[in-house]
Amino acid sequence: MRPSGRAPDQLREIVLETDVSMHAEGSCLAKFGDTHVLCTASLIESVPPWLRNSGRGWVTAEYGMLPRATTSRSEREAARGKQSGRTLEIQRLIGRSLRAVTDLTGFGERQIKLDCDVIQADGGTRTAAITGAYVALYLCFQHMHRFGAVKRIPLREEVAGVSCGLYEGTAVLDLDYAEDSSAQADANFVLTAGGGIVEVQATAEQDPFTRAQYDLLLELAEAGVRQLVGHQRRALGLA
Amino acid sequence: MRPSGRAPDQLREIVLETDVSMHAEGSCLAKFGDTHVLCTASLIESVPPWLRNSGRGWVTAEYGMLPRATTSRSEREAARGKQSGRTLEIQRLIGRSLRAVTDLTGFGERQIKLDCDVIQADGGTRTAAITGAYVALYLCFQHMHRFGAVKRIPLREEVAGVSCGLYEGTAVLDLDYAEDSSAQADANFVLTAGGGIVEVQATAEQDPFTRAQYDLLLELAEAGVRQLVGHQRRALGLA
Amino acid sequence: MRPSGRAPDQLREIVLETDVSMHAEGSCLAKFGDTHVLCTASLIESVPPWLRNSGRGWVTAEYGMLPRATTSRSEREAARGKQSGRTLEIQRLIGRSLRAVTDLTGFGERQIKLDCDVIQADGGTRTAAITGAYVALYLCFQHMHRFGAVKRIPLREEVAGVSCGLYEGTAVLDLDYAEDSSAQADANFVLTAGGGIVEVQATAEQDPFTRAQYDLLLELAEAGVRQLVGHQRRALGLA
Amino acid sequence: MRPSGRAPDQLREIVLETDVSMHAEGSCLAKFGDTHVLCTASLIESVPPWLRNSGRGWVTAEYGMLPRATTSRSEREAARGKQSGRTLEIQRLIGRSLRAVTDLTGFGERQIKLDCDVIQADGGTRTAAITGAYVALYLCFQHMHRFGAVKRIPLREEVAGVSCGLYEGTAVLDLDYAEDSSAQADANFVLTAGGGIVEVQATAEQDPFTRAQYDLLLELAEAGVRQLVGHQRRALGLA
Amino acid sequence: MRPSGRAPDQLREIVLETDVSMHAEGSCLAKFGDTHVLCTASLIESVPPWLRNSGRGWVTAEYGMLPRATTSRSEREAARGKQSGRTLEIQRLIGRSLRAVTDLTGFGERQIKLDCDVIQADGGTRTAAITGAYVALYLCFQHMHRFGAVKRIPLREEVAGVSCGLYEGTAVLDLDYAEDSSAQADANFVLTAGGGIVEVQATAEQDPFTRAQYDLLLELAEAGVRQLVGHQRRALGLA
Amino acid sequence: MRPSGRAPDQLREIVLETDVSMHAEGSCLAKFGDTHVLCTASLIESVPPWLRNSGRGWVTAEYGMLPRATTSRSEREAARGKQSGRTLEIQRLIGRSLRAVTDLTGFGERQIKLDCDVIQADGGTRTAAITGAYVALYLCFQHMHRFGAVKRIPLREEVAGVSCGLYEGTAVLDLDYAEDSSAQADANFVLTAGGGIVEVQATAEQDPFTRAQYDLLLELAEAGVRQLVGHQRRALGLA
Repeated sequence: MRPSGRAPDQLREIVLETDVSMHAEGSCLAKFGDTHVLCTASLIESVPPWLRNSGRGWVTAEYGMLPRATTSRSEREAARGKQSGRTLEIQRLIGRSLRAVTDLTGFGERQIKLDCDVIQADGGTRTAAITGAYVALYLCFQHMHRFGAVKRIPLREEVAGVSCGLYEGTAVLDLDYAEDSSAQADANFVLTAGGGIVEVQATAEQDPFTRAQYDLLLELAEAGVRQLVGHQRRALGLA
Repeated sequence: MRPSGRAPDQLREIVLETDVSMHAEGSCLAKFGDTHVLCTASLIESVPPWLRNSGRGWVTAEYGMLPRATTSRSEREAARGKQSGRTLEIQRLIGRSLRAVTDLTGFGERQIKLDCDVIQADGGTRTAAITGAYVALYLCFQHMHRFGAVKRIPLREEVAGVSCGLYEGTAVLDLDYAEDSSAQADANFVLTAGGGIVEVQATAEQDPFTRAQYDLLLELAEAGVRQLVGHQRRALGLA
Repeated sequence: MRPSGRAPDQLREIVLETDVSMHAEGSCLAKFGDTHVLCTASLIESVPPWLRNSGRGWVTAEYGMLPRATTSRSEREAARGKQSGRTLEIQRLIGRSLRAVTDLTGFGERQIKLDCDVIQADGGTRTAAITGAYVALYLCFQHMHRFGAVKRIPLREEVAGVSCGLYEGTAVLDLDYAEDSSAQADANFVLTAGGGIVEVQATAEQDPFTRAQYDLLLELAEAGVRQLVGHQRRALGLA
Repeated sequence: MRPSGRAPDQLREIVLETDVSMHAEGSCLAKFGDTHVLCTASLIESVPPWLRNSGRGWVTAEYGMLPRATTSRSEREAARGKQSGRTLEIQRLIGRSLRAVTDLTGFGERQIKLDCDVIQADGGTRTAAITGAYVALYLCFQHMHRFGAVKRIPLREEVAGVSCGLYEGTAVLDLDYAEDSSAQADANFVLTAGGGIVEVQATAEQDPFTRAQYDLLLELAEAGVRQLVGHQRRALGLA
Repeated sequence: MRPSGRAPDQLREIVLETDVSMHAEGSCLAKFGDTHVLCTASLIESVPPWLRNSGRGWVTAEYGMLPRATTSRSEREAARGKQSGRTLEIQRLIGRSLRAVTDLTGFGERQIKLDCDVIQADGGTRTAAITGAYVALYLCFQHMHRFGAVKRIPLREEVAGVSCGLYEGTAVLDLDYAEDSSAQADANFVLTAGGGIVEVQATAEQDPFTRAQYDLLLELAEAGVRQLVGHQRRALGLA
Repeated sequence: MRPSGRAPDQLREIVLETDVSMHAEGSCLAKFGDTHVLCTASLIESVPPWLRNSGRGWVTAEYGMLPRATTSRSEREAARGKQSGRTLEIQRLIGRSLRAVTDLTGFGERQIKLDCDVIQADGGTRTAAITGAYVALYLCFQHMHRFGAVKRIPLREEVAGVSCGLYEGTAVLDLDYAEDSSAQADANFVLTAGGGIVEVQATAEQDPFTRAQYDLLLELAEAGVRQLVGHQRRALGLA
């Protein structure tokens, strides 16, 4: 029995609220239950030095967590003077995930910066961030399209992330904090609408897990991402 | 004529939404028009070293702005590795303002940390932060009271902040970004319910301003704070 | 009775010693009693990036305190690896104060950097810094004038700073450390020779202060700045 | 055809040289072809604060690369003043991988720090580091056993890491730099002697990869790790 | 011919002004011509962790240069966020030099911090700092003696520093900036009153120098330090 | 009697192993007994800003120590976020020493970066680094010569470093850690093949040392460097 009473293959309530920022070119507040991540896409009219004169654009991400997004207050990274290894690891993951579905030759020498800020955390912040960032990125491209900056949305297919894990011996989908903190294994999957694998990060917290367990987690993730892609399409008015 | 069409002595629409964080002991989302600041109060069961064994508590604040809270994206302070002078100045102001109305001997050797994070900015973020932080602090003390940690709420009176300035020669209340960016003078006032002056920060952007102009600004602020205190009381169910 | 035996409206002994640095284009050692601040003006033949090709110059300030300028040794900011919030706040204040009286279009695309280093501290270092920095800046422009770099001194009027506060219930001018550390309220005023208000920073240390008290402080400051401007003029040989 | 002429399922030449440091309690120079990683295990007679009085020990890792370990010189992280996200990500991975096979209750309140420094890089530094760090850790425990600090070696089974990827459409084992820099997908597997999965980090560099491709990579890794475990046992004189 | 017209073995005008700081336990403004270094000695009633319960004290130094102490303004180290290699090298040298003549068992578990801040630089700042720091340290011990904290001044003999170099082929004493910047070799000697060698730092700027040249420099330094010790004794009223 | 049983004027076993890095343009593993320093020379096709359009090149060095190069593990400087004063001092010394024998006008506007990383430490790391860096630099120039980038090797003569000290009252050559940690005085000499003095850094650890002692140390160093130059020539196949 899961603490939340959910079935093993049941996502939390998913809400993808669009256009939540008056300034950003694209934005989405992604809610996976009590995990709330504000994702904004900012269009920047220049690229990093190593892409100048390449004709290609870039998509990158930054991740942060408000100090009291968590059960007990965590130190503010700006005050501490550096981002933690966990933060850097997550923002690199978000950036790679989005670039995997973006046609980087399709929007000129521009950069889109995805800021994913966790307003409230209850497990699964990185997968909510990826799922919401896709929506913000799409909206940013739509904005650019309206002004003629791109001819078509340079995204090949949807991408979304979800976590799975072994909780009291059972494979479960979309762990919340109560589950995550006592799971034996924790795996984050980033998959595309077409079922392609973009990123896998699986970690055995205590004992190693078996190939069979691992396959179960991947199957849960595939089903979960199909639902998340449905949410993305509805949020964008595409379904 | 103000860009927003407001009268010179008219505040923006003020919303003080309480209990917006599932984790914080007290929280308030303060909206001054399109300026939205999330204020959380976190109870910490220890004090800074210099207060140990003093029997006194401490109230302090941290301030941050999401990178895309602003018209064009600003650099993330955590990525940059340090907080700007502006950020440090504002968070010191918030802390002093709240301490000025708190009985620091009234809640034991504990610390309350007020995190004020700007979700969206349209001018006047520091004054919205102070106004919302008061509400979050009150709710935190109320929470402590329910659990018997304090006998009474150790706050002497309400405190709120508002900005005033000279815009096209006229003294106006509660500047938004359009006004702020072209004002000749900008003054932030932190006043109490009883009309006491807690903090004044006035800056002539171009020409110095006169004593008469300055007095006008202070009078606008006094009227504005009276209204803000009304909003605080209603948000807390005290009026 | 003030600890120093001064009358409530009496400044400390003021000395503005000019040309104290063999290298700087302008320099002034400002002494407000035992508070000694070395102010140097350095001419830099370039402007910050955001002013390039604007035809305008820039005036900015940095502030520091020698580790043993204070009663007990304070940590060296260079060793600590960052400037404190207090330091950043003060140097921003000095820069804004001097820019308020400078014609930034009057000396080409150049920058003048004012370094204000506290050699010995006894309260009121920021106001001594502003008062001395004006003299150093004037001398720097005079130096530029001699070499034909400016046609006239691009300063509109004198600017000076002074602190006032409530000490044992009485409004007093130019607080020294003994007064400052036990004052109920502390206000720094930056005013021009013509009585214009450039900056006000007022802080109630404990109880809020009243409008009437506040007005008294401002009046003391107006009288104090008139005397400081006299000292500036004499130091510059203009009176 | 692989640039090195290896078969798709062929490891590079593996050398695990032991006791290469005169100071460290355990050490191993792990060579995967031209990738050389010096792994040292340092015994520290204390634990991090959050483990004090828990009766448990800790194993952690740090990773670094000499500036000219790479084709073109990379900046020294110590000179730059911070470790990159990549470095932090890798050292967290190494630490988790080793903890997954260590009985943390089996060596008292002590800490073992694994330093993995890349002397020369040619792809696959993190997997060589994990494979070598296991050997250094074993030797450190053996050293502690000789002095009676532990009754038995508190390691449950061997752990080793290997990378796999899709190179010109073919699944290949143990990528070198020439392959890695043009692979379509890159996956790092950390597996135990018994076939348990400890960590998976898979990244599609361009197009997402399919479930079938992913399964092929995992099978290559399983065969590769079996061979690496054999090398570990021989290096330790256990086979 | 030296730019200053001095004889090869002639020091600049030396002034050691004592008790220049109202707060420090000992202080000396050391002037070697136009090089002015403010040296303060601060008594701290604790020692670094590694000396606790050793019965020994510690003497250490910090060095800094005001931004406009130099011909062209140099960046403020506190603003830059770190001390340069040159600064660290110099302050380590000052600390070692003073410890070499101090009986560290003679003043209890206390620390004396010597702050040497260059107010104006014209070459030879490190040697002026050492010479002045000795005087400040002596005065600090004298202060401690008056209050009974030490029975006798725990200094074995005077120590002073002086630079020598090869300028246009001639060995000269106490280089000023004009000489230093074009010298072929530059050597700093720290010697005691009794002629003992405490520190030598010699650097050939272009061509290596010969043993004979080196011996000449050392002889000049010996004569120079004898004079500097005379200045120290007169400044302290001991001669 | 020295702990190692060596005669007072006897070097440790010296090994200068060349071409130890597959990537670097020149490399040398310098072993002075158990002190092992990996020196690589990296050719960079640009110069620092202040040398642009000067027609001159630059040689500079960086120094590091692996955390477990030492008896007890030392903190990783990259993790700590800054290089120590000792590190900065040593790398500045290495750079100056090599520049003293290099014709900076002889290899165009290029930079050669010498990385000296201590793999294992047993005293005398800086002198081993200088001795090995010379060999790496020579090999780098030889590499450039093969490709026609220089017409001749722009090195005037060999340079090498060695430490000397007073150990139990006797002057000894090439101190190992056991001697170094209890020596009364420690001096590092950098000399050329022709006997020229490039750098001297001498420090009295406790009592000052005499002129006669100092002269003995220099003579030991001269004999030691002659042998080291022989090793350099043999390693480079020049003798």
